[in-house]
Amino acid sequence: MADLNVYELLNRKRRGAPLEPREIEAFVDRYTRGEIPEYQMSALLMAIAINGMTAEEMATLTQAMLRSGEQWHLRDRYDFIADKHSTGGVGDKVSLVLTPWVAACGIKIGMLSGRGLGHTGGTLDKLEAIPGFNARLSREEFERCVEEAGGVISTSTDGIAPADKKIYALRDVTGTVESLPLITASIMSKKLAMGASALILDVKTGSGAFMRHYQDSKALAQSLIDAAAGSGTRVEALITDMDRPLGVAAGNANEIVETIEVLKGNGPADVEEVTRAQAIRILVMSGRYDDASARAALDEALGSGRALEQARKWIAAQGGNAEVVDDYALLPQPAETIEVKAPRSGFIAHIDTYQAGMFTVDLGAGRKKADDVIDYAAGVMFDRRTGDAVKAGETIARIQLGRQGRDAEELRNRFLGFVQIADAPLLQARPLVHEHLA
Amino acid sequence: MADLNVYELLNRKRRGAPLEPREIEAFVDRYTRGEIPEYQMSALLMAIAINGMTAEEMATLTQAMLRSGEQWHLRDRYDFIADKHSTGGVGDKVSLVLTPWVAACGIKIGMLSGRGLGHTGGTLDKLEAIPGFNARLSREEFERCVEEAGGVISTSTDGIAPADKKIYALRDVTGTVESLPLITASIMSKKLAMGASALILDVKTGSGAFMRHYQDSKALAQSLIDAAAGSGTRVEALITDMDRPLGVAAGNANEIVETIEVLKGNGPADVEEVTRAQAIRILVMSGRYDDASARAALDEALGSGRALEQARKWIAAQGGNAEVVDDYALLPQPAETIEVKAPRSGFIAHIDTYQAGMFTVDLGAGRKKADDVIDYAAGVMFDRRTGDAVKAGETIARIQLGRQGRDAEELRNRFLGFVQIADAPLLQARPLVHEHLA
Repeated sequence: MADLNVYELLNRKRRGAPLEPREIEAFVDRYTRGEIPEYQMSALLMAIAINGMTAEEMATLTQAMLRSGEQWHLRDRYDFIADKHSTGGVGDKVSLVLTPWVAACGIKIGMLSGRGLGHTGGTLDKLEAIPGFNARLSREEFERCVEEAGGVISTSTDGIAPADKKIYALRDVTGTVESLPLITASIMSKKLAMGASALILDVKTGSGAFMRHYQDSKALAQSLIDAAAGSGTRVEALITDMDRPLGVAAGNANEIVETIEVLKGNGPADVEEVTRAQAIRILVMSGRYDDASARAALDEALGSGRALEQARKWIAAQGGNAEVVDDYALLPQPAETIEVKAPRSGFIAHIDTYQAGMFTVDLGAGRKKADDVIDYAAGVMFDRRTGDAVKAGETIARIQLGRQGRDAEELRNRFLGFVQIADAPLLQARPLVHEHLA
Repeated sequence: MADLNVYELLNRKRRGAPLEPREIEAFVDRYTRGEIPEYQMSALLMAIAINGMTAEEMATLTQAMLRSGEQWHLRDRYDFIADKHSTGGVGDKVSLVLTPWVAACGIKIGMLSGRGLGHTGGTLDKLEAIPGFNARLSREEFERCVEEAGGVISTSTDGIAPADKKIYALRDVTGTVESLPLITASIMSKKLAMGASALILDVKTGSGAFMRHYQDSKALAQSLIDAAAGSGTRVEALITDMDRPLGVAAGNANEIVETIEVLKGNGPADVEEVTRAQAIRILVMSGRYDDASARAALDEALGSGRALEQARKWIAAQGGNAEVVDDYALLPQPAETIEVKAPRSGFIAHIDTYQAGMFTVDLGAGRKKADDVIDYAAGVMFDRRTGDAVKAGETIARIQLGRQGRDAEELRNRFLGFVQIADAPLLQARPLVHEHLA
C-alpha cells in the first residue's frame, strides 16, 4: 500500500484507537524490509504496550510477523502433526517426555523450540546435553526425523519470522518487553510458522512462571489462543503450576536422566501428570482418540516400554547417542556435588521458583545473556520438595557443579534463602493442572 | 550520571510512574549529544504523550532542554526586561503593537520569536514585510536594539535549545506532537532561554487557536506557567479569544499597516484591547506600575504619539525603512484585489478561523511546509466581522493577491464556505480576554 500514513497511524494508536489490518500488515512488512525507521517502530511498540490491542489487531500482527518469513505448512504434508509450546519454567522437561510418548501412540509431533534465557531452562539446551544430539536441523532434516522417529525438536531457523527477531531486539532496548499483545505476537508468529495441525500451549503460573499471577497467566493463555484465529492451527491451552520446580531435577543433563526415568515409569508423578494432561489433549485433537482411549493408549505406551523405545529412535534420528537411555554415565557428570541439609525440622512450605531458577542459571545451567555458555552437568536435585516433611540435618537438595571451586557454604546459604520451612504441613496442595482453555 | 538505566527508565514511564529529575536531565543531555539513539527517545516521547507528566517532571524536562543550549540571562543585564509569547492565531499582530507601546512606557521588551507554519501567521514574517527589516540578529545586535529602541523581535538562534530542535523533529514523525507536557517543554525551553524578568503568555482559544476548546487552552496556560517553576522568570498568562480573526487584516504587509494604525489610535478596538491587557500585565510585573498607573501610562503613550515614535526607532534599529509608518506604499502591494460580496442579508454569526487561516496560507501569506516562500502582499481584509450586520451584495471582504491569475470565483466561494451568515444577530459576543492566570 503506497498510501500508508505512518504519522497519522501513530497518532491514532497514541489516542488508543485501533489500527486497520492492512495498516498493521504494511507497517510490519515495511519495517522488516528497512523502509520504516526504528524510531517509528519503537513509538508504535510503546503505544501498543500502553494502550493494548484488540484481539483482531493482535491476530493481524501475529499473522504479519509470521508472513515475514518461511511458513512450513506441515499440516498439508502430514495427516496430522502436533506442536507444543511452554511459556517456560524451572525443571520443565515436559516437551522431552511428551515427544516420544505421543509418537509412541502413532501421533506425529514436532517443535521449533528455543534456548533458555533468564530463570527458565531451555528445551534445546537440555537435549544438547546428550552427546551428539543435533538441535540445529534444516527443514529437510526436520521432516526426515518426523518420518523416522515420529517426533523432533529443533531450533527455529533464521528464515522463520525475521520480523519477530527485529522487533524483539527493539523491544529489548525500549522498555516494551512487558506487553501482552507483543508477547503474544512474538510467541505465536514463531509457533505458527511450522504450520502444525494442532498446538497445545502449556501456560505456567506461579513464582517460577513468566506470569506469576493466575489472572495474568490466564489472560496470556487466552491471548495466545486468540492470536491463532484464522491460522489453520487448532490451539488449546493448559494452565499448569510453576509455583514449585517441576520434578526433582533442574539443570540439563540431570533433566535428561529424569526424562528417561519418567519414560521408564519411575519418574516423579508431577512430571508424568503434567505431561499426560498435554498428551491427552494432543491425542484428542488428532481426532483418532477420545479422552478415554487417549488415556488408555498413553498408559499402554508407557507400560509396554514403547515410549522409551521411541525415545531411543528419536535421539538417534537427531544424531544423539541413544545409549544414554541405558547408561546415564554417558551424560556430562558433575565434578562436585554439595549437599544441602535442613537447618530445622518441619515441612517445606514454599520454594521460590524464580529464585531457584536464577540459582541454577548462576551454577552455569542457564544463561543471563544470550551468548553465555551452558554447563550441562550443573544443576540442582530437589530431594525434598514443596509439601514434604523434613528432619533437621537431613539432605534436602544436592547442588551439582560442572567445575570445582565454588564456595559451598555460600551456595548452601543462598539455596536456603529461597526455601521456606514451616512448622505445620500445607493444608492443601496446589493442583498441577489448573485449567483447560480451548 | 554513568548509571542511567535507560531500559528500566522506559519500563517505568511505560507503567505510568514518574521519572526522577536526574534521569530526565541525563536522558535529554545524552540524546542531544547523540549518545542515546532516536528509537529510545521516540519510545520515551510516546510514553510521555500517553501517560503524561507531573508538573515537576515537566519543569525538569523544560529546564533540561533549555540547558542544552545558550542561556542569555538578560534579566541579569537589565533591571527589568519583558518577554511575550503567543500560542498563535489568525491576524495576531499583538507582539508588533505591544513592543513599541511597552517600550514607550520605559519598559524594555525583547522576544525570540518564530515563523508561521500552518494556519497561524508568524510575527517574524510580518516584520520581514518591512523593506530592510532584519529579523535574524546576533545576540550582540539583539542587545544593541534593546538599548537603542527599548524593544526587539528576532528569530531564535541556532544555539538556543538544540535539544528542542532535535526532539521536535522526532515528534513530528512519531505521532507525538499532540502532548501537553511535550508542547509545554518545547515552548518554554525556547522562551526561557532569553532569561527575561517576566513573560506574558497569550494563550489563544477558539476555532483559530492551537487549542480550540477552552479547557484545553486553560490547561496549556497552566502547564506553561508550571513549567517555568524555578526558572527565575515570572510568568503570567492571559487566555484570549481566537474564535474570530484578530483585527481586520490577516496576512503580512496588511498586518503591518494595521499595527501602525493601532499605534496611531485608529486601529480596530479588538487589537488594541487584547494588546492593552498584555501590556498592563507587563507594566505591573515590572514593579514600576500598578494597574491604574499602567493604564494611564499606556493611554498617554498612545495618545501622545510616543508609541508610534518608538515604533519608528524600533524599525530603524532592526534595519527597516521606518518611513513605512507614514507611507504604506513602501510595503509590498497586492497585484490584484478580489472583493467578496455578501450572498444574502443578515448577520455574520461565525468565521471559522482555522479555515480562514488556511485560506490566507493558500494565498501565499503563510507556509504549509517549513521551506515555503512567503508572499508578503497576500492576505485577507475582513471588512465585515463576526457579529456585524451585512446587506446582500455589499463587500464583506477583500482577498489580496501578490500575483495575478487566481480563479476569483473559486476563491470567493471558498471564502464564503467558512463564513456563516445568520438571520438574527448574536445574542452575546464572546469576550476578547477570557481569563488571567498567574
